Amino acid sequence: MSTGYLDFYRGRSVLVTGGLGFIGSNLARRLVDLGARVLLVDSLIPDYGGNLFNIEGIADRLQVNIADVRQQSSMNHLVRDRAVIFNLAGQVSHIDSMRDPYSDLEINCRSQLTILEACRYNNPGVKVVFAGTRQVYGHADSLPVDERHLVRPTDVNGINKAAGEYYHLVYNNVFGIRACSLRLTNVYGPRQLIRHNRQGFIGWFIRLAIEDRTIQIYGDGSQLRDFVYVDDAADAFLRAGAIDACNGDVFNVGGDGPVSHRELATQLVKAAGSGRVEYVEWPAEKKAIDIGDFYADSSKFRGATGWTPATPLADGLGATIAFYRAHLSRYVTESRPAEPT
Amino acid sequence: MSTGYLDFYRGRSVLVTGGLGFIGSNLARRLVDLGARVLLVDSLIPDYGGNLFNIEGIADRLQVNIADVRQQSSMNHLVRDRAVIFNLAGQVSHIDSMRDPYSDLEINCRSQLTILEACRYNNPGVKVVFAGTRQVYGHADSLPVDERHLVRPTDVNGINKAAGEYYHLVYNNVFGIRACSLRLTNVYGPRQLIRHNRQGFIGWFIRLAIEDRTIQIYGDGSQLRDFVYVDDAADAFLRAGAIDACNGDVFNVGGDGPVSHRELATQLVKAAGSGRVEYVEWPAEKKAIDIGDFYADSSKFRGATGWTPATPLADGLGATIAFYRAHLSRYVTESRPAEPT
Repeated sequence: MSTGYLDFYRGRSVLVTGGLGFIGSNLARRLVDLGARVLLVDSLIPDYGGNLFNIEGIADRLQVNIADVRQQSSMNHLVRDRAVIFNLAGQVSHIDSMRDPYSDLEINCRSQLTILEACRYNNPGVKVVFAGTRQVYGHADSLPVDERHLVRPTDVNGINKAAGEYYHLVYNNVFGIRACSLRLTNVYGPRQLIRHNRQGFIGWFIRLAIEDRTIQIYGDGSQLRDFVYVDDAADAFLRAGAIDACNGDVFNVGGDGPVSHRELATQLVKAAGSGRVEYVEWPAEKKAIDIGDFYADSSKFRGATGWTPATPLADGLGATIAFYRAHLSRYVTESRPAEPT
Repeated sequence: MSTGYLDFYRGRSVLVTGGLGFIGSNLARRLVDLGARVLLVDSLIPDYGGNLFNIEGIADRLQVNIADVRQQSSMNHLVRDRAVIFNLAGQVSHIDSMRDPYSDLEINCRSQLTILEACRYNNPGVKVVFAGTRQVYGHADSLPVDERHLVRPTDVNGINKAAGEYYHLVYNNVFGIRACSLRLTNVYGPRQLIRHNRQGFIGWFIRLAIEDRTIQIYGDGSQLRDFVYVDDAADAFLRAGAIDACNGDVFNVGGDGPVSHRELATQLVKAAGSGRVEYVEWPAEKKAIDIGDFYADSSKFRGATGWTPATPLADGLGATIAFYRAHLSRYVTESRPAEPT
């Protein structure tokens, strides 16, 4: 494959849903550099990942349209004439999905139909790459997990993300709207939401280390995960968007091997030169939806696209810490006064 | 297990959603005979399966509440004080789900959250048995299909039914609301909707045979399915509702072995003494979402509950034909004048 997939984007019209969010904005940076004509759609729902600071430095090289992906007529218009849609808009908090399952349903499940129906009637020639999640697997029967593992989510968020992914495959197979899904494991890096701890632990741990606070690890910290640096995740999207061999299929996009929570926190404190680790009991609410050890086998995606998670964890953590140290105020304080939600 | 599960229902308060429909009304007959206190909830949406004639002869031995399972406050009230909920309300047309995916989403996916949230806050001690479907498997990788087969639906209906099923499992595991799902294959028998052909082929074939019309078989008729007589399906629900070994799990409920479309139609015409068979090309719209050959391995459910599909196909077809011959006008004509939908 070499780098031909990068040339593919020069001059192409690309839409990124959730484009002001963590992965979306990092992907947008790559796309702008590759010469793509980039439109970001984001609803800036408070407490989700969208942040206008995420496009600082590239804001004049792309278009931003504030809209909700649940709104059909908006999407009918916005999908038109795009060559590729990177479909990343979503509600990512597992805990929130158990407290308010309807909002999660609307955003992760129904909105996918909205986007795909918009494409069906307004741009059936488009290619869509969906941001799936390893959460759809639930507890792993064996490790590493490949795509033949049963889909058996442990929480409402995982269910709705699974349904959203299945819609993409059905629209690919039935309506010919080329689509695929990347089942991402734990992605980390600059521009992730770190204002609260309901969107995954790694960004939150980084914030605690930088602020010289105590990182609480549930249980004994032996739990395994794999981690993907956001630049590598963005590269995975670029490959999937350009390579039609991916159409109609799902692919794990995981890290280079398992890392325990304990090891991650230790590396993080060392890299930051601040913070400390404390081991505490699992909160019941989190234990009930926890998936246990997990790490992915990404060989199917590597085989199809040549992708590899190129960034070592130490390098990625170092770059992430440096980013947040430089811009912490943009990510930890409220940027606006209180307002109606 | 013997028949202890039948005694379980004496005097118990039981709710059946979709209770005026095909399987729901047959289940209601069994429940009434077993001495249960039965409440049927149905919305009587035109073109769905609800039919007041389905409870003729038992209407004075149960309660009927016309309501939509999507309506939260109705469900909050109706689930209270029930020992068991048989959750059968659904949109069952695959073709309709591809034309209008949102209605299917609302009824098969969102409404399941409505019911489960109603239980979570108003009756967490209830047991829920969900009517799942073999459609969640999509194309079979190998036959017969057991529950270790991947969930990979071929249409929007299958996706939303899968999500609805997953919600039940998550609410069982996280909130302790005992629930399980029966993945039904092709169920047939008295009281099925036969007014149009968008809800599965078998009821429609039966109508055509009775009316001495031509049964159109797509392709060469070699496609395999398995068939469950509705009394056996009702018995499966009764067992799953009474037996806590089923909680938190999914079970295939299939027929006694594979039968080709050709064989089914031939048996049907013979049993009816009327009708004929014609082989035609697959309509593109149906071919696109067809799942190919399918028959289920139900040994997991047999092992857990002692259930068996007791009714031979010939007997079931005979009883079904006799039923519709006696009551055809109640199932093929519009019972009401045109009205707003």
